[in-house]
Amino acid sequence: MNSISVSKNLKVAVIGQGNVGSHLAEALKGKVDLFIVNPHTLEGLPDFVDVAVIAVKDTVTAEVAKAIDGRAGIIAHTSGSVPLSAISGVGTDTGVFYPLQTFTKGVALDYSDIPFFIEGSSPECVGTLKGLAGLISGNVREAGSEERRQLHIAAVFACNFSNYLVDIADKLLNEKGMDYKVLLPLLRQTVSKLHTVSPEEAQTGPAARNDLPVINRHLEMLSATPRLQDLYKTLSEMIMGSEL
Amino acid sequence: MNSISVSKNLKVAVIGQGNVGSHLAEALKGKVDLFIVNPHTLEGLPDFVDVAVIAVKDTVTAEVAKAIDGRAGIIAHTSGSVPLSAISGVGTDTGVFYPLQTFTKGVALDYSDIPFFIEGSSPECVGTLKGLAGLISGNVREAGSEERRQLHIAAVFACNFSNYLVDIADKLLNEKGMDYKVLLPLLRQTVSKLHTVSPEEAQTGPAARNDLPVINRHLEMLSATPRLQDLYKTLSEMIMGSEL
Repeated sequence: MNSISVSKNLKVAVIGQGNVGSHLAEALKGKVDLFIVNPHTLEGLPDFVDVAVIAVKDTVTAEVAKAIDGRAGIIAHTSGSVPLSAISGVGTDTGVFYPLQTFTKGVALDYSDIPFFIEGSSPECVGTLKGLAGLISGNVREAGSEERRQLHIAAVFACNFSNYLVDIADKLLNEKGMDYKVLLPLLRQTVSKLHTVSPEEAQTGPAARNDLPVINRHLEMLSATPRLQDLYKTLSEMIMGSEL
Repeated sequence: MNSISVSKNLKVAVIGQGNVGSHLAEALKGKVDLFIVNPHTLEGLPDFVDVAVIAVKDTVTAEVAKAIDGRAGIIAHTSGSVPLSAISGVGTDTGVFYPLQTFTKGVALDYSDIPFFIEGSSPECVGTLKGLAGLISGNVREAGSEERRQLHIAAVFACNFSNYLVDIADKLLNEKGMDYKVLLPLLRQTVSKLHTVSPEEAQTGPAARNDLPVINRHLEMLSATPRLQDLYKTLSEMIMGSEL
């Protein structure tokens, strides 16, 4: 389905102003007829909008969809983990408008770089949501609920868990009066490399070269923090493909 | 100790042409009188150089230092994990010339961005090594063996292990006909955010928001791969600060 070109008069409600909702509203500002809506009171929602984008907690997504039933041509949610079927009970077109990105309130983003994954209950709905995403980003594609679920878990490993590993590194460096900022060039390069080679090819470090003396010294350094020691051991074994 | 300005006539030998040695040689080319030396035969090593930079496996570093004793004003190694004392038996100034970076042969690098950590057996030696590193990078500082060891283990968590998490993500995406490249904008943003906020503040995802329904669904999705399931559980528990 090609995207449908979307006019500035398209009435779009963004429901919820958490990390995702606030960034989507910011990205759509001036590009459509935008309404920012309180998910609890529905304050700010006109009688009828063309598209209502729900950006609330997964657990209340279906409830909000039900509450606005009849007041939007398309009701779409923004979650990686909620299947389209969860909101399909409402009497309109339904869809998913999933930006694969890590949003933090107050941290600016280059929206044009965000991949959007679209799903919809009809070809027209898919077209409109693709058109809407196309106002924000040059990287818009379709994905079914199962693909989106896989994208989400992959992103948890690659992004959320990686960020936590930097947090661990920060705490280790703090012990010696340094902090994670010294690692930023290394982190930039770790990602930059992946534009040229796969993560498997890019893997370096003691485990990748089977360097047992270094691994054992590191495990000893972590003996006061058994959880970190376990994590180091597990990840090294997984990289090596063998037990330590 | 301030850096000593280093002349183009400084004779510098880079011993070893693995990931680190080949990049250092590339970065120093045209900036000093450079000799590329085979670590096994010492082919390419003149009678005497001002600085010999050893870039070989940790386990053979001391051996190579001993083999070139008397043929260099300063003998320095490039390892995060080897203490200066490991090569201090030789009869010259000794030092460490540690670039905190992930090197992959054939993948280009912006060398000016690489932090160098210098240690030396004398103030003059530190000055010369800082001057040499200054030819490559604008980010040169001193670090003792203990700090360097901590930098190295922190880098293993933040860089090597993170890269492995992207490899896991890649394999998960492959199952649905996608690959890690779709995550690159997200990965760029994950690192980019850390220039503004700390990793602790930047943490997002199901575990950070205590989203048990999503976490449990993800654990279920990983039930066919128990090691991945364990890893997901462990990292989520560490982020949440509580058991699942």
